[in-house]
Amino acid sequence: MLNKLNRISLSDQAYGEMERMIADGTWPLGARIPSEPELMAQLGVSRNTLREATRAMVHVGMLETKQGDGTFVAATSELNAILQKRMQRSSVLETLEVRHALDRQAASLACSNRTEQDLERIRHANAACIAAFRAQNLEAFVSADWQLHQAIVAASHNALLLDIYTSLFEEIQVSIASTTEFSNDAITGHPGLVAAISNRNAAAAEQEVDAYIALTKSMLHETAETETP
Amino acid sequence: MLNKLNRISLSDQAYGEMERMIADGTWPLGARIPSEPELMAQLGVSRNTLREATRAMVHVGMLETKQGDGTFVAATSELNAILQKRMQRSSVLETLEVRHALDRQAASLACSNRTEQDLERIRHANAACIAAFRAQNLEAFVSADWQLHQAIVAASHNALLLDIYTSLFEEIQVSIASTTEFSNDAITGHPGLVAAISNRNAAAAEQEVDAYIALTKSMLHETAETETP
Repeated sequence: MLNKLNRISLSDQAYGEMERMIADGTWPLGARIPSEPELMAQLGVSRNTLREATRAMVHVGMLETKQGDGTFVAATSELNAILQKRMQRSSVLETLEVRHALDRQAASLACSNRTEQDLERIRHANAACIAAFRAQNLEAFVSADWQLHQAIVAASHNALLLDIYTSLFEEIQVSIASTTEFSNDAITGHPGLVAAISNRNAAAAEQEVDAYIALTKSMLHETAETETP
Repeated sequence: MLNKLNRISLSDQAYGEMERMIADGTWPLGARIPSEPELMAQLGVSRNTLREATRAMVHVGMLETKQGDGTFVAATSELNAILQKRMQRSSVLETLEVRHALDRQAASLACSNRTEQDLERIRHANAACIAAFRAQNLEAFVSADWQLHQAIVAASHNALLLDIYTSLFEEIQVSIASTTEFSNDAITGHPGLVAAISNRNAAAAEQEVDAYIALTKSMLHETAETETP
Protein backbone atom coordinates (compact mmCIF):
# COMPACT_ATOMS: atom_id res chain seq x y z
CA MET A 1 0.00 0.00 0.00
CA LEU A 2 3.03 2.27 0.38
CA ASN A 3 4.11 2.02 -3.28
CA LYS A 4 3.53 5.14 -5.25
CA LEU A 5 2.25 4.51 -8.75
CA ASN A 6 4.50 6.11 -11.34
CA ARG A 7 3.12 9.23 -12.88
CA ILE A 8 2.91 8.98 -16.66
CA SER A 9 6.48 9.55 -17.88
CA LEU A 10 7.38 11.89 -20.73
CA SER A 11 8.28 8.95 -22.93
CA ASP A 12 4.89 7.37 -22.21
CA GLN A 13 3.28 10.62 -23.29
CA ALA A 14 5.39 10.71 -26.46
CA TYR A 15 4.44 7.06 -27.15
CA GLY A 16 0.77 7.90 -26.65
CA GLU A 17 0.95 10.93 -28.95
CA MET A 18 2.66 8.94 -31.73
CA GLU A 19 0.17 6.12 -31.27
CA ARG A 20 -2.65 8.63 -31.71
CA MET A 21 -1.11 10.04 -34.90
CA ILE A 22 -1.00 6.51 -36.32
CA ALA A 23 -4.53 5.66 -35.15
CA ASP A 24 -6.11 8.80 -36.65
CA GLY A 25 -4.29 8.37 -39.96
CA THR A 26 -2.01 11.43 -39.67
CA TRP A 27 0.74 8.85 -40.16
CA PRO A 28 -0.78 6.21 -42.44
CA LEU A 29 0.36 2.60 -42.70
CA GLY A 30 3.68 2.41 -44.58
CA ALA A 31 4.46 6.13 -44.19
CA ARG A 32 7.83 7.39 -43.03
CA ILE A 33 7.48 9.29 -39.76
CA PRO A 34 9.07 12.77 -39.37
CA SER A 35 12.78 13.08 -38.51
CA GLU A 36 14.04 13.10 -34.91
CA PRO A 37 14.61 16.89 -34.78
CA GLU A 38 11.11 17.56 -36.16
CA LEU A 39 9.52 15.17 -33.66
CA MET A 40 11.54 16.55 -30.74
CA ALA A 41 10.19 20.01 -31.58
CA GLN A 42 6.65 18.81 -32.25
CA LEU A 43 6.37 16.76 -29.03
CA GLY A 44 8.57 19.02 -26.90
CA VAL A 45 10.77 16.19 -25.63
CA SER A 46 14.51 15.41 -25.56
CA ARG A 47 16.25 13.09 -28.00
CA ASN A 48 16.58 10.38 -25.31
CA THR A 49 12.91 10.52 -24.38
CA LEU A 50 11.88 10.39 -28.05
CA ARG A 51 14.20 7.45 -28.75
CA GLU A 52 12.86 5.52 -25.79
CA ALA A 53 9.30 5.95 -27.07
CA THR A 54 10.25 5.17 -30.68
CA ARG A 55 12.19 2.04 -29.73
CA ALA A 56 9.30 0.79 -27.60
CA MET A 57 7.00 1.21 -30.62
CA VAL A 58 9.49 -0.72 -32.76
CA HIS A 59 9.52 -3.52 -30.15
CA VAL A 60 5.73 -3.69 -30.20
CA GLY A 61 5.71 -3.72 -33.99
CA MET A 62 3.88 -0.45 -34.64
CA LEU A 63 7.02 1.12 -36.16
CA GLU A 64 9.79 -0.42 -38.24
CA THR A 65 13.29 1.01 -38.68
CA LYS A 66 15.03 0.62 -42.02
CA GLN A 67 18.72 1.35 -41.68
CA GLY A 68 19.74 4.56 -43.41
CA ASP A 69 16.20 5.17 -44.57
CA GLY A 70 14.13 6.16 -41.53
CA THR A 71 11.30 4.83 -39.43
CA PHE A 72 8.02 3.65 -40.94
CA VAL A 73 4.51 2.85 -39.70
CA ALA A 74 4.19 -0.95 -39.63
CA ALA A 75 0.78 -1.42 -37.95
CA THR A 76 -2.21 0.81 -37.24
CA SER A 77 -2.49 -0.03 -33.51
CA GLU A 78 -0.85 -2.01 -30.72
CA LEU A 79 -3.61 -4.60 -31.01
CA ASN A 80 -3.02 -4.88 -34.74
CA ALA A 81 0.76 -5.24 -34.30
CA ILE A 82 0.53 -7.90 -31.61
CA LEU A 83 -2.24 -9.92 -33.29
CA GLN A 84 -0.32 -9.84 -36.59
CA LYS A 85 2.72 -11.26 -34.78
CA ARG A 86 0.57 -13.98 -33.20
CA MET A 87 -1.08 -14.82 -36.53
CA GLN A 88 2.30 -15.66 -38.07
CA ARG A 89 2.38 -18.76 -35.86
CA SER A 90 -1.15 -19.92 -36.79
CA SER A 91 -2.27 -22.41 -39.40
CA VAL A 92 -4.81 -21.44 -42.05
CA LEU A 93 -7.33 -23.80 -40.44
CA GLU A 94 -6.90 -22.24 -36.97
CA THR A 95 -7.39 -18.81 -38.50
CA LEU A 96 -10.50 -19.90 -40.41
CA GLU A 97 -12.04 -21.42 -37.26
CA VAL A 98 -11.58 -18.18 -35.30
CA ARG A 99 -12.95 -16.23 -38.24
CA HIS A 100 -15.97 -18.55 -38.38
CA ALA A 101 -16.73 -17.78 -34.71
CA LEU A 102 -16.52 -14.01 -35.21
CA ASP A 103 -18.30 -13.92 -38.61
CA ARG A 104 -21.22 -15.89 -37.23
CA GLN A 105 -21.60 -13.74 -34.13
CA ALA A 106 -21.26 -10.55 -36.20
CA ALA A 107 -23.93 -11.71 -38.68
CA SER A 108 -26.29 -12.61 -35.84
CA LEU A 109 -25.78 -9.30 -34.01
CA ALA A 110 -26.07 -7.35 -37.27
CA CYS A 111 -29.60 -8.77 -37.67
CA SER A 112 -30.61 -7.09 -34.38
CA ASN A 113 -28.46 -3.97 -34.44
CA ARG A 114 -28.01 -2.88 -38.07
CA THR A 115 -29.24 0.57 -39.03
CA GLU A 116 -30.50 1.57 -42.49
CA GLN A 117 -27.10 3.19 -43.06
CA ASP A 118 -25.30 -0.08 -42.18
CA LEU A 119 -27.56 -1.94 -44.61
CA GLU A 120 -26.81 0.58 -47.33
CA ARG A 121 -23.06 0.11 -46.83
CA ILE A 122 -23.43 -3.70 -46.82
CA ARG A 123 -25.50 -3.67 -50.04
CA HIS A 124 -23.05 -1.33 -51.71
CA ALA A 125 -20.07 -3.61 -50.92
CA ASN A 126 -22.01 -6.67 -52.07
CA ALA A 127 -22.85 -5.00 -55.39
CA ALA A 128 -19.15 -4.11 -55.78
CA CYS A 129 -18.22 -7.79 -55.25
CA ILE A 130 -20.58 -8.92 -57.98
CA ALA A 131 -19.46 -6.18 -60.40
CA ALA A 132 -15.79 -7.05 -59.81
CA PHE A 133 -16.50 -10.74 -60.38
CA ARG A 134 -18.32 -10.00 -63.65
CA ALA A 135 -15.36 -7.87 -64.78
CA GLN A 136 -12.98 -10.63 -63.60
CA ASN A 137 -11.07 -7.92 -61.70
CA LEU A 138 -9.46 -9.86 -58.85
CA GLU A 139 -7.94 -6.86 -57.10
CA ALA A 140 -11.25 -5.00 -57.00
CA PHE A 141 -13.01 -8.17 -55.85
CA VAL A 142 -10.64 -8.73 -52.92
CA SER A 143 -11.10 -5.17 -51.77
CA ALA A 144 -14.91 -5.25 -52.11
CA ASP A 145 -15.16 -8.63 -50.35
CA TRP A 146 -13.19 -7.29 -47.37
CA GLN A 147 -15.36 -4.15 -47.31
CA LEU A 148 -18.46 -6.36 -47.24
CA HIS A 149 -17.26 -8.50 -44.32
CA GLN A 150 -16.05 -5.49 -42.39
CA ALA A 151 -19.37 -3.68 -42.97
CA ILE A 152 -21.25 -6.66 -41.52
CA VAL A 153 -19.01 -6.72 -38.43
CA ALA A 154 -19.42 -2.94 -38.05
CA ALA A 155 -23.21 -3.44 -38.18
CA SER A 156 -22.94 -5.61 -35.04
CA HIS A 157 -22.25 -2.32 -33.19
CA ASN A 158 -19.76 -4.15 -30.98
CA ALA A 159 -16.51 -2.12 -31.09
CA LEU A 160 -14.47 -4.84 -29.35
CA LEU A 161 -15.57 -7.42 -31.93
CA LEU A 162 -14.78 -5.01 -34.78
CA ASP A 163 -11.31 -4.16 -33.41
CA ILE A 164 -10.33 -7.79 -32.90
CA TYR A 165 -11.77 -8.77 -36.29
CA THR A 166 -9.97 -6.03 -38.20
CA SER A 167 -6.68 -6.62 -36.38
CA LEU A 168 -6.81 -10.35 -37.03
CA PHE A 169 -7.97 -10.48 -40.61
CA GLU A 170 -7.26 -7.27 -42.53
CA GLU A 171 -3.77 -8.32 -43.61
CA ILE A 172 -4.58 -12.03 -44.00
CA GLN A 173 -7.66 -11.32 -46.11
CA VAL A 174 -5.49 -9.57 -48.65
CA SER A 175 -2.80 -12.23 -48.65
CA ILE A 176 -5.20 -15.20 -48.96
CA ALA A 177 -7.37 -13.54 -51.57
CA SER A 178 -4.50 -12.30 -53.68
CA THR A 179 -3.28 -15.87 -54.20
CA THR A 180 -6.78 -17.02 -55.17
CA GLU A 181 -7.96 -17.19 -58.75
CA PHE A 182 -11.52 -16.86 -59.91
CA SER A 183 -13.11 -20.23 -60.48
CA ASN A 184 -16.66 -21.44 -61.13
CA ASP A 185 -17.30 -22.14 -57.48
CA ALA A 186 -15.70 -18.92 -56.22
CA ILE A 187 -17.69 -17.03 -53.60
CA THR A 188 -18.96 -13.99 -55.47
CA GLY A 189 -20.53 -11.78 -52.86
CA HIS A 190 -23.06 -12.93 -50.29
CA PRO A 191 -26.59 -12.06 -51.49
CA GLY A 192 -28.22 -14.62 -49.14
CA LEU A 193 -26.41 -13.19 -46.12
CA VAL A 194 -27.29 -9.63 -47.09
CA ALA A 195 -30.96 -10.61 -47.45
CA ALA A 196 -30.93 -12.33 -44.04
CA ILE A 197 -29.46 -9.24 -42.37
CA SER A 198 -31.97 -7.03 -44.21
CA ASN A 199 -34.84 -9.27 -42.93
CA ARG A 200 -33.29 -9.45 -39.43
CA ASN A 201 -33.31 -13.26 -39.67
CA ALA A 202 -30.42 -14.33 -37.41
CA ALA A 203 -30.84 -18.09 -37.93
CA ALA A 204 -30.66 -17.68 -41.73
CA ALA A 205 -27.67 -15.32 -41.42
CA GLU A 206 -25.76 -17.85 -39.30
CA GLN A 207 -26.54 -20.61 -41.82
CA GLU A 208 -25.16 -18.47 -44.64
CA VAL A 209 -21.93 -17.92 -42.68
CA ASP A 210 -21.66 -21.65 -41.91
CA ALA A 211 -22.09 -22.39 -45.63
CA TYR A 212 -19.36 -20.08 -46.94
CA ILE A 213 -16.94 -21.12 -44.21
CA ALA A 214 -17.58 -24.78 -45.14
CA LEU A 215 -17.00 -23.93 -48.82
CA THR A 216 -13.74 -22.11 -47.99
CA LYS A 217 -12.62 -25.12 -45.91
CA SER A 218 -13.32 -27.50 -48.80
CA MET A 219 -11.39 -25.20 -51.18
CA LEU A 220 -8.45 -25.24 -48.75
CA HIS A 221 -8.50 -29.04 -48.72
CA GLU A 222 -8.50 -29.12 -52.53
CA THR A 223 -5.57 -26.69 -52.68
CA ALA A 224 -3.68 -28.76 -50.11
CA GLU A 225 -4.33 -31.94 -52.11
CA THR A 226 -3.28 -30.32 -55.40
CA GLU A 227 -0.08 -29.06 -53.83
CA THR A 228 0.85 -32.37 -52.25
CA PRO A 229 3.21 -34.23 -54.62
CA MET B 1 15.16 -2.80 -52.58
CA LEU B 2 18.41 -1.28 -51.31
CA ASN B 3 17.25 -1.07 -47.68
CA LYS B 4 19.01 -3.46 -45.40
CA LEU B 5 16.77 -5.04 -42.80
CA ASN B 6 18.04 -4.40 -39.30
CA ARG B 7 19.69 -7.33 -37.68
CA ILE B 8 18.07 -8.21 -34.38
CA SER B 9 19.49 -5.69 -31.90
CA LEU B 10 20.86 -6.65 -28.48
CA SER B 11 17.92 -4.97 -26.79
CA ASP B 12 15.52 -6.97 -28.99
CA GLN B 13 17.30 -10.11 -27.85
CA ALA B 14 17.09 -9.04 -24.20
CA TYR B 15 13.37 -8.27 -24.69
CA GLY B 16 12.86 -11.71 -26.25
CA GLU B 17 14.71 -13.47 -23.43
CA MET B 18 12.72 -11.69 -20.73
CA GLU B 19 9.48 -12.38 -22.63
CA ARG B 20 10.42 -16.08 -22.67
CA MET B 21 11.10 -16.10 -18.91
CA ILE B 22 7.64 -14.66 -18.34
CA ALA B 23 5.96 -17.02 -20.82
CA ASP B 24 7.51 -20.17 -19.33
CA GLY B 25 6.70 -19.13 -15.76
CA THR B 26 10.27 -18.55 -14.58
CA TRP B 27 8.98 -15.10 -13.72
CA PRO B 28 5.33 -15.64 -12.73
CA LEU B 29 2.59 -13.00 -12.88
CA GLY B 30 3.05 -10.49 -10.05
CA ALA B 31 6.66 -11.50 -9.33
CA ARG B 32 9.44 -8.94 -8.93
CA ILE B 33 12.07 -9.45 -11.65
CA PRO B 34 15.78 -9.64 -10.70
CA SER B 35 17.78 -6.44 -10.12
CA GLU B 36 19.53 -4.61 -12.97
CA PRO B 37 23.05 -5.88 -12.07
CA GLU B 38 21.79 -9.48 -11.91
CA LEU B 39 19.99 -9.18 -15.24
CA MET B 40 22.97 -7.48 -16.92
CA ALA B 41 25.14 -10.44 -15.88
CA GLN B 42 22.50 -13.04 -16.76
CA LEU B 43 21.74 -11.63 -20.23
CA GLY B 44 25.26 -10.36 -20.93
CA VAL B 45 24.14 -6.86 -21.91
CA SER B 46 24.94 -3.29 -20.85
CA ARG B 47 22.77 -1.23 -18.52
CA ASN B 48 21.53 0.92 -21.43
CA THR B 49 20.54 -2.08 -23.51
CA LEU B 50 18.76 -3.69 -20.57
CA ARG B 51 16.91 -0.47 -19.74
CA GLU B 52 15.76 -0.07 -23.33
CA ALA B 53 14.31 -3.59 -23.30
CA THR B 54 12.74 -3.18 -19.85
CA ARG B 55 11.16 0.15 -20.72
CA ALA B 56 9.71 -1.27 -23.93
CA MET B 57 8.13 -4.08 -21.90
CA VAL B 58 6.70 -1.50 -19.49
CA HIS B 59 5.21 0.40 -22.47
CA VAL B 60 3.60 -2.78 -23.79
CA GLY B 61 2.26 -3.59 -20.33
CA MET B 62 4.13 -6.85 -19.66
CA LEU B 63 6.14 -5.22 -16.84
CA GLU B 64 5.18 -2.57 -14.32
CA THR B 65 7.59 -0.33 -12.39
CA LYS B 66 6.78 0.61 -8.82
CA GLN B 67 8.91 3.51 -7.67
CA GLY B 68 11.49 2.50 -5.09
CA ASP B 69 10.25 -1.07 -5.10
CA GLY B 70 11.36 -2.64 -8.38
CA THR B 71 9.85 -4.01 -11.56
CA PHE B 72 7.04 -6.57 -11.58
CA VAL B 73 5.44 -8.94 -14.10
CA ALA B 74 2.08 -7.41 -15.10
CA ALA B 75 0.97 -9.73 -17.93
CA THR B 76 1.98 -13.19 -19.14
CA SER B 77 2.43 -12.25 -22.81
CA GLU B 78 2.33 -9.30 -25.23
CA LEU B 79 -1.07 -10.51 -26.46
CA ASN B 80 -2.34 -10.66 -22.90
CA ALA B 81 -1.04 -7.16 -22.07
CA ILE B 82 -2.50 -5.54 -25.19
CA LEU B 83 -5.87 -7.31 -25.01
CA GLN B 84 -6.17 -6.39 -21.32
CA LYS B 85 -5.58 -2.74 -22.25
CA ARG B 86 -8.21 -2.98 -25.00
CA MET B 87 -10.71 -4.67 -22.66
CA GLN B 88 -10.61 -1.70 -20.29
CA ARG B 89 -12.47 0.31 -22.95
CA SER B 90 -15.18 -2.36 -23.51
CA SER B 91 -18.61 -2.66 -21.98
CA VAL B 92 -19.66 -5.86 -20.20
CA LEU B 93 -22.15 -6.56 -23.02
CA GLU B 94 -19.48 -6.22 -25.74
CA THR B 95 -17.23 -8.57 -23.79
CA LEU B 96 -20.02 -11.10 -23.30
CA GLU B 97 -20.88 -11.08 -27.02
CA VAL B 98 -17.27 -11.80 -28.00
CA ARG B 99 -17.11 -14.49 -25.36
CA HIS B 100 -20.32 -16.02 -26.71
CA ALA B 101 -18.74 -16.28 -30.18
CA LEU B 102 -15.59 -17.97 -28.88
CA ASP B 103 -17.34 -20.24 -26.32
CA ARG B 104 -19.71 -21.54 -28.97
CA GLN B 105 -16.98 -22.24 -31.53
CA ALA B 106 -14.80 -23.87 -28.84
CA ALA B 107 -17.66 -26.14 -27.69
CA SER B 108 -18.42 -27.15 -31.28
CA LEU B 109 -14.77 -27.90 -32.11
CA ALA B 110 -14.30 -29.75 -28.80
CA CYS B 111 -17.03 -32.17 -29.91
CA SER B 112 -14.89 -33.15 -32.92
CA ASN B 113 -11.39 -32.80 -31.50
CA ARG B 114 -11.49 -33.66 -27.77
CA THR B 115 -9.34 -36.55 -26.59
CA GLU B 116 -10.12 -38.81 -23.63
CA GLN B 117 -7.60 -36.78 -21.64
CA ASP B 118 -9.38 -33.52 -22.52
CA LEU B 119 -12.69 -35.05 -21.43
CA GLU B 120 -11.13 -36.17 -18.15
CA ARG B 121 -9.91 -32.63 -17.47
CA ILE B 122 -13.32 -31.15 -18.38
CA ARG B 123 -15.19 -33.60 -16.10
CA HIS B 124 -12.76 -32.94 -13.26
CA ALA B 125 -13.30 -29.16 -13.46
CA ASN B 126 -17.08 -29.60 -13.69
CA ALA B 127 -17.07 -31.79 -10.56
CA ALA B 128 -14.98 -29.12 -8.79
CA CYS B 129 -17.60 -26.46 -9.72
CA ILE B 130 -20.41 -28.53 -8.23
CA ALA B 131 -18.42 -29.33 -5.07
CA ALA B 132 -17.51 -25.67 -4.56
CA PHE B 133 -21.15 -24.64 -5.02
CA ARG B 134 -22.32 -27.23 -2.46
CA ALA B 135 -19.69 -25.93 -0.02
CA GLN B 136 -20.76 -22.34 -0.86
CA ASN B 137 -17.06 -21.60 -1.43
CA LEU B 138 -17.13 -18.71 -3.92
CA GLU B 139 -13.37 -18.47 -4.41
CA ALA B 140 -13.05 -22.18 -5.23
CA PHE B 141 -16.08 -21.95 -7.50
CA VAL B 142 -14.66 -19.04 -9.53
CA SER B 143 -11.41 -20.90 -10.01
CA ALA B 144 -13.09 -24.20 -10.99
CA ASP B 145 -15.49 -22.45 -13.39
CA TRP B 146 -12.58 -20.77 -15.19
CA GLN B 147 -10.72 -24.12 -15.32
CA LEU B 148 -13.81 -25.71 -16.88
CA HIS B 149 -14.20 -23.08 -19.61
CA GLN B 150 -10.50 -23.07 -20.37
CA ALA B 151 -10.43 -26.87 -20.56
CA ILE B 152 -13.24 -26.80 -23.13
CA VAL B 153 -11.40 -24.23 -25.24
CA ALA B 154 -8.19 -26.28 -24.95
CA ALA B 155 -10.14 -29.32 -26.21
CA SER B 156 -10.84 -27.42 -29.45
CA HIS B 157 -7.15 -28.00 -30.25
CA ASN B 158 -6.99 -24.54 -31.82
CA ALA B 159 -4.01 -22.75 -30.23
CA LEU B 160 -4.96 -19.35 -31.69
CA LEU B 161 -8.46 -19.60 -30.22
CA LEU B 162 -7.04 -20.65 -26.83
CA ASP B 163 -4.50 -17.79 -26.76
CA ILE B 164 -7.05 -15.13 -27.66
CA TYR B 165 -9.59 -16.60 -25.22
CA THR B 166 -7.18 -16.75 -22.30
CA SER B 167 -5.77 -13.29 -22.99
CA LEU B 168 -9.26 -11.76 -23.21
CA PHE B 169 -11.02 -13.43 -20.32
CA GLU B 170 -8.62 -14.72 -17.66
CA GLU B 171 -8.53 -11.46 -15.72
CA ILE B 172 -12.17 -10.48 -16.41
CA GLN B 173 -13.46 -13.89 -15.32
CA VAL B 174 -11.97 -13.35 -11.90
CA SER B 175 -13.21 -9.78 -11.57
CA ILE B 176 -16.80 -10.53 -12.68
CA ALA B 177 -17.10 -13.69 -10.62
CA SER B 178 -15.62 -12.20 -7.47
CA THR B 179 -18.38 -9.60 -7.38
CA THR B 180 -21.05 -12.26 -7.85
CA GLU B 181 -22.81 -13.93 -4.98
CA PHE B 182 -24.30 -17.38 -5.01
CA SER B 183 -28.00 -17.29 -5.72
CA ASN B 184 -30.63 -19.88 -6.58
CA ASP B 185 -30.27 -19.38 -10.30
CA ALA B 186 -26.45 -19.25 -10.27
CA ILE B 187 -24.74 -21.31 -12.96
CA THR B 188 -23.26 -24.22 -11.03
CA GLY B 189 -21.14 -26.09 -13.52
CA HIS B 190 -22.26 -27.19 -16.97
CA PRO B 191 -23.30 -30.87 -16.86
CA GLY B 192 -25.35 -30.59 -20.09
CA LEU B 193 -22.42 -29.08 -21.97
CA VAL B 194 -20.01 -31.70 -20.64
CA ALA B 195 -22.42 -34.47 -21.74
CA ALA B 196 -22.74 -32.95 -25.23
CA ILE B 197 -18.96 -32.79 -25.64
CA SER B 198 -18.67 -36.36 -24.34
CA ASN B 199 -21.27 -37.50 -26.94
CA ARG B 200 -19.65 -35.37 -29.67
CA ASN B 201 -23.01 -33.64 -30.22
CA ALA B 202 -22.03 -30.20 -31.57
CA ALA B 203 -25.60 -28.91 -32.01
CA ALA B 204 -26.45 -29.72 -28.38
CA ALA B 205 -23.15 -28.19 -27.17
CA GLU B 206 -23.87 -24.94 -29.01
CA GLN B 207 -27.39 -24.81 -27.53
CA GLU B 208 -25.94 -25.22 -24.03
CA VAL B 209 -23.57 -22.30 -24.63
CA ASP B 210 -26.41 -20.15 -26.03
CA ALA B 211 -28.45 -20.95 -22.90
CA TYR B 212 -25.84 -19.98 -20.30
CA ILE B 213 -24.87 -16.83 -22.20
CA ALA B 214 -28.57 -15.86 -22.32
CA LEU B 215 -28.84 -16.53 -18.56
CA THR B 216 -25.73 -14.43 -17.87
CA LYS B 217 -27.16 -11.61 -20.02
CA SER B 218 -30.44 -11.68 -18.08
CA MET B 219 -28.52 -11.58 -14.77
CA LEU B 220 -26.59 -8.53 -16.04
CA HIS B 221 -29.85 -6.80 -16.88
CA GLU B 222 -31.20 -7.54 -13.39
CA THR B 223 -28.02 -6.19 -11.77
CA ALA B 224 -28.24 -3.07 -13.93
CA GLU B 225 -31.91 -2.58 -12.99
CA THR B 226 -31.22 -3.10 -9.29
CA GLU B 227 -28.42 -0.55 -9.40
CA THR B 228 -30.46 2.08 -11.20
CA PRO B 229 -32.00 4.44 -8.63
